[in-house]
Amino acid sequence: MRITVLAGGVGAARFLRGLKAAAPDADITVIGNTGDDITLFGLRVCPDLDTVMYTLGGGINEQQGWGRAGETFGVRAELAAYGVGPEWFTLGDRDFATHILRSQLLASGRPLSEVTRTLCERWRPGVRLLPMSDNPVETHVALDEGGSGRTVHFQEWWVHLHAKAPATAIIAVGAEQAAPAPGVLDAIGGADVVVFPPSNPVVSIGTILSVPGIRAAVAAKTVVGVSPIIGGAPVRGMADACLTAIGVATTAAAVGAHYGPDLIDGWLVDDQDKSAADDPALAGIEVRAMPLLMRDLPATTAIARAAVDLALELR
Amino acid sequence: MRITVLAGGVGAARFLRGLKAAAPDADITVIGNTGDDITLFGLRVCPDLDTVMYTLGGGINEQQGWGRAGETFGVRAELAAYGVGPEWFTLGDRDFATHILRSQLLASGRPLSEVTRTLCERWRPGVRLLPMSDNPVETHVALDEGGSGRTVHFQEWWVHLHAKAPATAIIAVGAEQAAPAPGVLDAIGGADVVVFPPSNPVVSIGTILSVPGIRAAVAAKTVVGVSPIIGGAPVRGMADACLTAIGVATTAAAVGAHYGPDLIDGWLVDDQDKSAADDPALAGIEVRAMPLLMRDLPATTAIARAAVDLALELR
Repeated sequence: MRITVLAGGVGAARFLRGLKAAAPDADITVIGNTGDDITLFGLRVCPDLDTVMYTLGGGINEQQGWGRAGETFGVRAELAAYGVGPEWFTLGDRDFATHILRSQLLASGRPLSEVTRTLCERWRPGVRLLPMSDNPVETHVALDEGGSGRTVHFQEWWVHLHAKAPATAIIAVGAEQAAPAPGVLDAIGGADVVVFPPSNPVVSIGTILSVPGIRAAVAAKTVVGVSPIIGGAPVRGMADACLTAIGVATTAAAVGAHYGPDLIDGWLVDDQDKSAADDPALAGIEVRAMPLLMRDLPATTAIARAAVDLALELR
Repeated sequence: MRITVLAGGVGAARFLRGLKAAAPDADITVIGNTGDDITLFGLRVCPDLDTVMYTLGGGINEQQGWGRAGETFGVRAELAAYGVGPEWFTLGDRDFATHILRSQLLASGRPLSEVTRTLCERWRPGVRLLPMSDNPVETHVALDEGGSGRTVHFQEWWVHLHAKAPATAIIAVGAEQAAPAPGVLDAIGGADVVVFPPSNPVVSIGTILSVPGIRAAVAAKTVVGVSPIIGGAPVRGMADACLTAIGVATTAAAVGAHYGPDLIDGWLVDDQDKSAADDPALAGIEVRAMPLLMRDLPATTAIARAAVDLALELR
């Protein structure tokens, strides 16, 4: 079975662990969001790709869900001593090595998809990890500052401002000119099942879908999504702030309706959101309720299995 | 008093500590060798500039004479886990921060001289540190392999091969096209005294002198050198291998004669080499003998004071 997953960071990475356990013989391709990527200190940082790679490769800091286990922070402290920032973006020494190597390979002219494959030769994540595009796409956030028109890089809004500054729009800068990375459209087209893990529907899945060609390719397949919203709040992260910025309510039903029946065929919601099954806004989408909290690997495996089973049922 | 010093790495840095103590009110400019510079993992590493900067700025690893005090090696271990090298060149995490920042500033289009000034804003070495050139000059070593013609980067020969592979030539690649960095010729021309510390006469001082314009500017001044050779052996490092490669004997007299009376006016040798004063090869050079081992700051200060005093005497 071939399964293709559009993935953000922490939530997707944890879901993928469950998916690998639920479908150990499946051929899984992960299309990672690169809209959060940022150049810091001249080095290219790809937070979502790395979170997936480290998590599935056994190198993740389990407690925080991102970054490396057993980190030290010598480089960062030293850069701060030089008075250069940003200090709000934490990079550990082990993580720096990844960014140094990635930047070196990119500077030698290799595209991000090839560089990601090289990094994965070490991590062996057990999935094929592809960036959504080899072209730079940067998620920017327009701040609600009385018409100042100021936009900031997603990471500045998310990490520095903790998504507390109200946003009026979220823009995938460069997306219109971007092309799907080699293998992306084939992985979608050739998939038996496409799954949206409980990633941020705006800045993770939404950004991937903004790359020309990807949305149409996904829409042509049987797609099941897992709601990132449980009981009116994101399980992790600040998806509510992103949803508010694009005028979507922070409910499982509203997110399912935002994807819409043209894109998804099935929608997994948590038991406490089971009333979504009767929501007319979700007409044409098969809604199923089950416990969606990924509290451990068995729970996560059950969620992933339900998503795949529902997709196979809906084919 | 204005003193200009041509400097390699460890020996020069230690000498400069003594010089600052010997002439606390002097305006000291250090012209650093950049022929040892190397790009590793896409980052520009300037070993001699950094050794001077860290030593005078209080950040050096005193035991080894290079690198940072209190280092950790997280980045390096991680790069090794990725299978990328070279592993023979040790870079610590604190040191990596310097190279990351330097590379970022260079990539933004700033010349090395300006970048070095920025780095020194933190370290406050108490001297003006200038690279010999903003243009890349790389010291390469031709190996004696039966006419293979193979040349290697100086660092590969020095650090990896421990200078044990016999060399037939040492070439400053790019020197002919290089120009002195801004301020270099003025610092030499405006100096009351030019001093050669006990640096490697071939790959440190020799490389600096290979930049067009520098040798002539130095030759026009009163110059005193401190012999890096004591009793027929280098005090530190493997200068003997470099001298052999260019056909110069490893003696204080031979090195003084190699510089020659056109370049230097005075030559400080160790007491055990005092017979050099009578060596006809040193005709035209004022030779003085004294203890030259830089065993501590007072001893080093005495050597630096003697060099400056001799230069003032010979003006």
